[in-house]
Amino acid sequence: MTTPVPATRGYRRLSVEERRGQLLSASLRLFAHRAPDEVSLDDVAAAAGVSRPLVYRYFPGGKPQLYETALRSAAEVLQRCFTEPQSGPPTERLARVLDSYLVFVDQNDAGFSALLRGGSVVETSRTDTIVDGVRRAAAEQILSHLGADRPGPRLRMLVRTWIAVVEASSLIWLDEGKQPPAHELRAWLVDHLIALLAVSAATDEDVAGAIGGLMVLERPHSPVGRLARGMLPVVSGASRLL
Amino acid sequence: MTTPVPATRGYRRLSVEERRGQLLSASLRLFAHRAPDEVSLDDVAAAAGVSRPLVYRYFPGGKPQLYETALRSAAEVLQRCFTEPQSGPPTERLARVLDSYLVFVDQNDAGFSALLRGGSVVETSRTDTIVDGVRRAAAEQILSHLGADRPGPRLRMLVRTWIAVVEASSLIWLDEGKQPPAHELRAWLVDHLIALLAVSAATDEDVAGAIGGLMVLERPHSPVGRLARGMLPVVSGASRLL
Repeated sequence: MTTPVPATRGYRRLSVEERRGQLLSASLRLFAHRAPDEVSLDDVAAAAGVSRPLVYRYFPGGKPQLYETALRSAAEVLQRCFTEPQSGPPTERLARVLDSYLVFVDQNDAGFSALLRGGSVVETSRTDTIVDGVRRAAAEQILSHLGADRPGPRLRMLVRTWIAVVEASSLIWLDEGKQPPAHELRAWLVDHLIALLAVSAATDEDVAGAIGGLMVLERPHSPVGRLARGMLPVVSGASRLL
Repeated sequence: MTTPVPATRGYRRLSVEERRGQLLSASLRLFAHRAPDEVSLDDVAAAAGVSRPLVYRYFPGGKPQLYETALRSAAEVLQRCFTEPQSGPPTERLARVLDSYLVFVDQNDAGFSALLRGGSVVETSRTDTIVDGVRRAAAEQILSHLGADRPGPRLRMLVRTWIAVVEASSLIWLDEGKQPPAHELRAWLVDHLIALLAVSAATDEDVAGAIGGLMVLERPHSPVGRLARGMLPVVSGASRLL
């Protein structure tokens, strides 16, 4: 047989799990690049090459259920980006995680924007919980790399705030047509966390303790070394205030 | 006459404008300390001491219209917090604006949280526009104090990101029962912006130019001088990376 099997006829050959996976993949692709209110059940059916009733057979809750399932699946992919071995210069680990994260944002641009902007037609208290779960997972990873088993309130607020920084910058980045290039945004986000830790260490012992332990793992050519050298002219401008 | 006039009988004496103002004040007080879905039209009528039909006569759009009007009024109050003369050390100006802002957040706690958390029953595309208008006004004020008539993309992203930082920290602050004390949060937010400008100046000429002009206006006892001294032990930990 040399002609491809038409998608509309092929669906009987898939198992229940395979069919479910196929519908989910089609939804994920659609929800990645369009706002949820711009995706219809017919679009999902067409993208998967099946009928609308078949979509309902697998997802009786219709579009809200499809969206929630797609979102859970995307959240798992995103959380996997955060996994990074606890070895080597910490700012290099952070740079790697941010690189993976920005690839995810790039590949899920419209869906990511719509979700974080909120106000979506299908946003529910459950979708909020999914996003919050991802935020918590990110915070736990960062605190774990910081070696903070029992983080104080300032360190917890710092980490939650920096996660908001990453979300806001990602939205602005998408809004600006993905400018500056992802590697520049990543470098800026790394510098931002270093800066935030450094100024907080000036007034909080908990933060000072955490970064003291990390600095010994850094190298002159790691992001923190590069930043330290770049800061020299800026710091000399502040010397008369000391 | 020594007994007070019962509120329910007094409403005929007010002019149209006075009555409208009274209903709006009652709404503002209610929406400040409760989530919008926890405020009913009956609550507004009771708080103003009038009947429900009277509220409808002034606000035929019912609760959504009342909420939007209250929000516009609160947004004006908030935007007035941002006004600050362009004289004196810039970090002292920033500290004063943040003090006013945090008083506003404190006095409008539940309403502020609900609005920024989104997902409110009465959130509409118009309420989003109101919040975005406040954000734009804040960004314009900051850029004007930075002396940036034509801010480059990095500086614009920096300012928008720091505004997201302020919003996120305020929400966390409310979530944590208004801890740490407002003056500590304010000091941390000032330090955060200084840090963000400093690290961005290391790689962006536009930002370097803006802060160069501001540094000459700073004093040893202004927030940036205090931060510079606090940073000495932190910076010395990075010296081997230079």
